Amino acid sequence: MTSACRDLTLREVCDFLRAHDRYLILTHASPDGDTLGSGFALCAALRRLGKRARVACPDGVPEKYRFFAPADETADAPAADDCILAVDIADEQLLGSLKAAVAGRVALAVDHHVSNTRFAAGLYLDAKASATCECIYELIGALGLLLDRQMSDALYTGIATDTGCFKYSNVTPRTHRIAAALMEQGIDAAEINRVMFDTKSRAGLALEQEALRAAEYHFGGRCLILPVTLAMREQTGCCAEDVDRVSVLSRSVEGVQAGVTIKQVEASVYKISLRTYEPLDAAEICRNMGGGGHRAAAGCTLSGTLESVRETVLKWVGQALEKADAGTAAL
Amino acid sequence: MTSACRDLTLREVCDFLRAHDRYLILTHASPDGDTLGSGFALCAALRRLGKRARVACPDGVPEKYRFFAPADETADAPAADDCILAVDIADEQLLGSLKAAVAGRVALAVDHHVSNTRFAAGLYLDAKASATCECIYELIGALGLLLDRQMSDALYTGIATDTGCFKYSNVTPRTHRIAAALMEQGIDAAEINRVMFDTKSRAGLALEQEALRAAEYHFGGRCLILPVTLAMREQTGCCAEDVDRVSVLSRSVEGVQAGVTIKQVEASVYKISLRTYEPLDAAEICRNMGGGGHRAAAGCTLSGTLESVRETVLKWVGQALEKADAGTAAL
Repeated sequence: MTSACRDLTLREVCDFLRAHDRYLILTHASPDGDTLGSGFALCAALRRLGKRARVACPDGVPEKYRFFAPADETADAPAADDCILAVDIADEQLLGSLKAAVAGRVALAVDHHVSNTRFAAGLYLDAKASATCECIYELIGALGLLLDRQMSDALYTGIATDTGCFKYSNVTPRTHRIAAALMEQGIDAAEINRVMFDTKSRAGLALEQEALRAAEYHFGGRCLILPVTLAMREQTGCCAEDVDRVSVLSRSVEGVQAGVTIKQVEASVYKISLRTYEPLDAAEICRNMGGGGHRAAAGCTLSGTLESVRETVLKWVGQALEKADAGTAAL
Repeated sequence: MTSACRDLTLREVCDFLRAHDRYLILTHASPDGDTLGSGFALCAALRRLGKRARVACPDGVPEKYRFFAPADETADAPAADDCILAVDIADEQLLGSLKAAVAGRVALAVDHHVSNTRFAAGLYLDAKASATCECIYELIGALGLLLDRQMSDALYTGIATDTGCFKYSNVTPRTHRIAAALMEQGIDAAEINRVMFDTKSRAGLALEQEALRAAEYHFGGRCLILPVTLAMREQTGCCAEDVDRVSVLSRSVEGVQAGVTIKQVEASVYKISLRTYEPLDAAEICRNMGGGGHRAAAGCTLSGTLESVRETVLKWVGQALEKADAGTAAL
C-alpha cells in the first residue's frame, strides 16, 4: 500500500498479462474453491499464452480440490523475476505465510470483494461477480482463449462454492450463463457438487450432534446459540471446516433471525460467528463487540467464560432485535 | 389407458392449447415445487391466451408455495366441459383424491419422467428436462408469450426444487440458461432458495438428532442405517417432509455408498428408503425386497420388527457391495 493502486479494465489486464513472461499466482490462506479455482484456471490460461506460470498456496491445496489443482503444480517460493498476481485476495493479511516474501510486490490483483484494500499495483475488481472465478472466466474470453476441461472444473468449483451452489443472493443471470458454458466443456458438475456440498464427515456430523445437544434458543426462538467447545472438538476429532458448517446450520432453523456459533479457541477466548437475516445487520452487531464483516455474516473475538461471552452476545443481539421491531412498528 | 396415447411435439401442444377454451390443470398428490410450478405457470399462460384455466391440487397447496400458487386459484371439482391437463404426473395413481373424477379424461400430459405410463390421450414428454417446469418454459416461449414475475417465480421454484438447487446430475446447460432468463424477471431467487432449502423446522432438527443417535454404520462405514420410529415421530412432532430429509442425510456422510432410512409406518410395517452411489443400484437392491425406484434412490415396504427388517436390508446391501467389489476386482 505504498503507492496508489490503479484500477484496470479487462482489456488492460489482457495487455498486462501478454506483456510479461513469468508469473506467480497467489491464492489466499485457508484456501477455498474460489481462490483455488481462480488461481489454477488463470495459470492454465497463462500457459496457453506460452507463459511460465505457477500457483502458490500459503496453506497447500486441500484434498478435495486436487482434481483441478494438482499439488505438483504449486510453488511456495517466489523468484526475483516473478510477476506476482493475486486472485480472490481482499487484503494482504490473507497472504498468510507468504506475506513476508511478497508484500508490496503484487503487480495485479483480480478480485470480487468490494472490501479489497487495494494492496496491489493494479486492480481488476468486479464487485458484481458472485465469485472471482466469474472474473477469470471473462478474462479467459477476453484473452481469446477457449475453455478446456481443467479450467472449467476449476471455474465451476469456484462459482459453485462461493454461491452455495447457486443458492445465495450474489448469483446473477450471468452466473447461470457462465455455469451453462462451463458445463458444455463436459465437467461432471453433479460429482463436484456432491464432494463440495453433500459430503459430511462422520466427525463433522458428531460435532453437529454435540452442538445441537447444547443448543439454546433465545428471544422466542429468534436467536439460536450453538456452542462449540474445545472439548467437543477433541472428542469428535473434527476439522476447521466441520466447525464452519455449524455456523451455516445456526441460521438454517425455521424462525431464527440470528444464528450464533460460539467457538472456543483457547481456554478463555471465544470466536463468535454470527449469521443473520434481514433486517438484522450482522456486521453492525459485531462492530459493537470489536468485530466486523458482512451484513449477513460477521464475527468477533471475545475473552471470558462461555457464560459471560454468551451474555455479551445476547445483549447486542437483543438490542438489534428491539431496534428491528421498533422499525417495523414505525411503518 | 383405454386407447393409445399419442406423442405430441411442442408445436402440436401449442395448437391444442389454442383450440380449447376451458382448462383444468391437475398437479400430483403430495405436491412438490415442480408440479405446482408447472401447473400455476401454465395456468397463467393459458389465461394470457384468453382462456379460462384453473389448477386442481389433490392435497392442496403447502404454505411455502403460496407466493406463486394462491390457494384461491385452485379448484378441486372438474366440470363436464373442462379440457383436462396433467403436469409432472407420471402415473394416474398420483392423482390421489382426484383420480376417480378424472381417470380416463386427461387430454394432455406434460412431463419429464421417462417412466410416464402414457395415461393421457396426448403426451409431451421431455426426459432430458431437469423438471417439468423446463418443458413449461419452452411451451410459454413457443406460444409466443412473454414471461412475467409470477410465472418466473413458479418455474424457478420447480427447477430449483427438482435439481437440489442446480446440484444434481439432471442439470444441463439449458437448465442454467433458463434460470438466467427467469432471474431477469426480477424474482428473489435467494429468498426462494432460503425457504426451499435452508429452513429446517425445530421438529425436523430434533428428528435428525434422534435418528443420528440411533444410527448404525455397517460394512466398514459403507452403509449407514438411520431408523425413524413412530415413537421418534411422535416425540418430536415432525412432519412427513422432515422424515424425507433424513433420507437425504443418510447418503451425505463421507464414505457411505448406501444410505438406508428405515421408517416405521405401523407397529410391524417399515418403509425402506435407500439412496446409493455408483456402482450400487438402489432400484435393483429394492427389487429383491419387492420394491423399486431409480438407480440412486429407491424404496420398498417390509413387515416385521426393526431388527428383522434391518437384517433383510443388510443382506441385500451386503450382496450388492460384494458384487460391486467383485466387479472392481475384475477390471
